[in-house]
Amino acid sequence: MNAHIITIGDEILIGQTLNTNAAYIGSKLVDIQVYVKKSSVVADKEEDILKEFKECWENNDLVVVTGGLGPTHDDITRQCVVKFFNTELVQNNDVLEDIKTMFAKRGREVTKVNEGQALVPKIAKVIQNSRGTAPGFWIEKKNKIFVVMPGVPFEMKEMMEDFVLPDLKERLHNPKTISLRETLQTTGIAESALFEKLGNLNELLEGAKLAFLPSQFGVKLRITATEKTEEKAKNKLTEIEQRIRSKAGRFIFSRDEEYLEEVVARLLKERGLTISLAESCTGGGLANVLTNVTGASAYFERGIVSYSNASKVEILKVLEDTISEHGAVSLEVARQMAEGVKSISGTDLGVSITGIMGPTGATTGKPVGLVYIGLCDDKVCTAKEFTFGDDRIINKQRTIQAALDMIRKHLLGISLDG
Amino acid sequence: MNAHIITIGDEILIGQTLNTNAAYIGSKLVDIQVYVKKSSVVADKEEDILKEFKECWENNDLVVVTGGLGPTHDDITRQCVVKFFNTELVQNNDVLEDIKTMFAKRGREVTKVNEGQALVPKIAKVIQNSRGTAPGFWIEKKNKIFVVMPGVPFEMKEMMEDFVLPDLKERLHNPKTISLRETLQTTGIAESALFEKLGNLNELLEGAKLAFLPSQFGVKLRITATEKTEEKAKNKLTEIEQRIRSKAGRFIFSRDEEYLEEVVARLLKERGLTISLAESCTGGGLANVLTNVTGASAYFERGIVSYSNASKVEILKVLEDTISEHGAVSLEVARQMAEGVKSISGTDLGVSITGIMGPTGATTGKPVGLVYIGLCDDKVCTAKEFTFGDDRIINKQRTIQAALDMIRKHLLGISLDG
Repeated sequence: MNAHIITIGDEILIGQTLNTNAAYIGSKLVDIQVYVKKSSVVADKEEDILKEFKECWENNDLVVVTGGLGPTHDDITRQCVVKFFNTELVQNNDVLEDIKTMFAKRGREVTKVNEGQALVPKIAKVIQNSRGTAPGFWIEKKNKIFVVMPGVPFEMKEMMEDFVLPDLKERLHNPKTISLRETLQTTGIAESALFEKLGNLNELLEGAKLAFLPSQFGVKLRITATEKTEEKAKNKLTEIEQRIRSKAGRFIFSRDEEYLEEVVARLLKERGLTISLAESCTGGGLANVLTNVTGASAYFERGIVSYSNASKVEILKVLEDTISEHGAVSLEVARQMAEGVKSISGTDLGVSITGIMGPTGATTGKPVGLVYIGLCDDKVCTAKEFTFGDDRIINKQRTIQAALDMIRKHLLGISLDG
Repeated sequence: MNAHIITIGDEILIGQTLNTNAAYIGSKLVDIQVYVKKSSVVADKEEDILKEFKECWENNDLVVVTGGLGPTHDDITRQCVVKFFNTELVQNNDVLEDIKTMFAKRGREVTKVNEGQALVPKIAKVIQNSRGTAPGFWIEKKNKIFVVMPGVPFEMKEMMEDFVLPDLKERLHNPKTISLRETLQTTGIAESALFEKLGNLNELLEGAKLAFLPSQFGVKLRITATEKTEEKAKNKLTEIEQRIRSKAGRFIFSRDEEYLEEVVARLLKERGLTISLAESCTGGGLANVLTNVTGASAYFERGIVSYSNASKVEILKVLEDTISEHGAVSLEVARQMAEGVKSISGTDLGVSITGIMGPTGATTGKPVGLVYIGLCDDKVCTAKEFTFGDDRIINKQRTIQAALDMIRKHLLGISLDG
C-alpha cells in the first residue's frame, strides 16, 4: 500500500509551526507496513489544495490529510473535500451531539460556528473527535482510501490510534516481507561511547539495521528487522536486543516508548514505596514529570521547590552553616535536602536537586551546568555530582533525566557509579 | 517569485527526524518576500526524486532542495541533478582544496569518498560549505533558479545566510508588493468565541489576511498585510492590531513569540514583586515553567507541591476541617493554599492550584477537569473555578496556562471575571 501525507496550512509552509503531524503519521504508517512514498505541505488555498488532492489520489492507495478543519474562515479543507469528491454537506447528528456535550461539559453555550462543524461530506464516514469539535472524514472509493483529520496534534493522534490505524491494519493482508522495529532507550551514556561499547555492528545485527537517535534525554537505539514472517522478525529483534543488553544493559531503561518517569513510577508502585522531592534549580520540573504519570498520588507525597536559601533552611532544615561553608550548590546541601524532605514527609525515599542551570549564576569553581543530586532511603543517604552544558532548558531536562535514572538504578540495585 | 522546497530523505518521511530544514527555509524565504507555494518530502529514490524535480521546476521560479549530498552510497541527489539537467560531473579544484584543508585541520587523511565530493555538476555554480565536505549547487536556467544544499542543518543554514539569501535579495529589489506578518497570542478564549468577538472580518482586515492557530496554550492570530511599501504594510498591521485589541484585548498576552511565562516574569520583575506557589494537581508544572525563564530567582521564592492532604495541612496550614467539609478540590482550599504559601514565604503574591487532572480521581459533583486557582496579595485573596477536559497532560498544560493568565491579569489590573 502506497501512501501520501498532505499537510495543509500556511503556518507550516512559512516555518511558524514544525510539521510534527507528518512525522507522526509517517512513523505510524511505516509501523503497519504502509509505504510512505511522499509527503507535502500546501497553503490554505483552494486551487493548490484541489491540485494536490488530484495528484495524490491518482498516484496512491492511501492519502492522509491534516489541517484546515477548524471553524473559522481560513479553514477550507472541508469545502475542498466536498468539491473534489463532487459530494455535498449533510448534518451528522452524532457529531452535533458530541459538540453539544463537549460545550455543556465546559459550561459554555454552543456557538453557531461550532454547530456548523456537524456538517460533513455526504460520501464520508465520520471519525469521531473526542478531544475537539472538528470530526475527521474517512472516504473510500475504487479500493482507495482518503483520510482527513484536524491539524491539532492531540486530536489527530487520538483519531489515528482509535480509528485510522486499526482500520488500515485490517486491510493489509500477508505482505511478502515483514519489517518490525524495536526501540531501546538508553540514558547516561554518550552516543559515541555507546557505539564503541556495541563493537562490531555486522556481527551484532546479522543483516538487521540499527539507528542511533540522540537527544537530551539519552540515545535511542532503533533496530529494524526485515524477514519473511512476523515470527522470524520477532526472533531476530529478541536476539539483537539480548546482545545489546549484554553489552550496555545498565544504560537501557526501557524498550519501545515507555518514558523514564513511567519506568520509575511503575517500580515505585510495584514495590509499594513513596517518594518526596526537594528541588532547587529544576524548579519543580522533576515533580512535574513524575506527576504526569496517571495515579501519581500512590507514590508521590509532596515536593518542595526550595528556590531561595531561606526555603531550604525553613522547610527542609538544611543547616545555615552548611550553606555558608559549602554553598547552596554542593554535595552536602544536596544530601541535607534529600534527608530533610524525606523526614518531613515520612516517605520511603527523599530525592533532591541543587545546581546552576545558567546562563547566570556561575561562581568561581562552580560553572553553569554543575548539579548535585541527593537520594536517601532508610539505609543510605548519598549525593552525586554531574556536569552538564550551557543551555538552561536543556540543562533542566538533562538534570531531571539524571535524577530519574538515579532513582531507577537505586530501585533496581544497579550501582550509581560509572 | 514562487518557490517550492524539496526535502530528500527517508528519515524525514518515516518520522525519525523532524523536518526543521523546510521550516527554516520557508521562514527565511517569506522574510525576503518570496512566496512559498508548496513543500514536499521524497524518499532517497532516483525515480521519485527526478519526478519531483520535473514537477517543481515546471511550476516555480525557485526550487530549493536539501538532503542526499553526503559521501555514502545512499546519497543520490547529485546524480539526480546531473541526470535532470542533462549535464556531467567535473572536478572543482576550489572544493577539493576546501576538503583537503578541512581534513588537515582535523589532523586526518582525506579519504577517496570525500575527494569524490569535489566533483560537481558542470552547469552549477558552487556554494561553498565551510562547515562540512559537501558543496551546494546554484543552477540558473531560463530565468529560474535551482538550489541544492546538504541536509545537515547547520551546514545548510550557513549557505542560506552567506550565499543564497543575499543573492536572492539582490534579484528581488523593488518587489511590486511587500507582505509583513504579525502574530498576537491569546489565551482563555476558544477559537470560535474569539472568531465571533472579532465580528465582520472584511471590515476588520480591509484586504489583509487573518489566520487562527489554536493549541492548548491558546489561539494565535496571525495577521498578514500586503501593500506597495513597507511603511504602508507596517501601518496596516498597526491599525488591525488596534482594532483587534479593542475587541478582544484582555485575552491578548503577547505580540509575536513571547511565551506567557515570559510575560508574567517580565511584569513581576518590572514591578519588583515576588511570588510563591502552592500546587497540587499540576505537580510543580507551574513552578517549572516560571523557572524556565532566565533570572527567575529575582521573583520566584519557593513552591510547595502539596500533593497529599497532609502536606497541605502541615506546610500550607490549610485547615483540616475545610478539607473534610469542602474537599481538597474546592474554592476554599485553593484560597487557603494561596494564603498559606504567601504567608510562609513572605512574598508579595501567593498562587495556588488544586484540581482533578484525570483520568482517575473524579467524585460525585467533581468531574475530571475541575480546577480551582487561588491568588492572594496583601489586599485581595480570591479563587476561581475552571473546567477543562479529559486528558491528564493537556489538563495540566491548560491549568498552568490559566494560572499564568490569572497572574498576568491581576498584575495588569484586568478583571479576572468573564
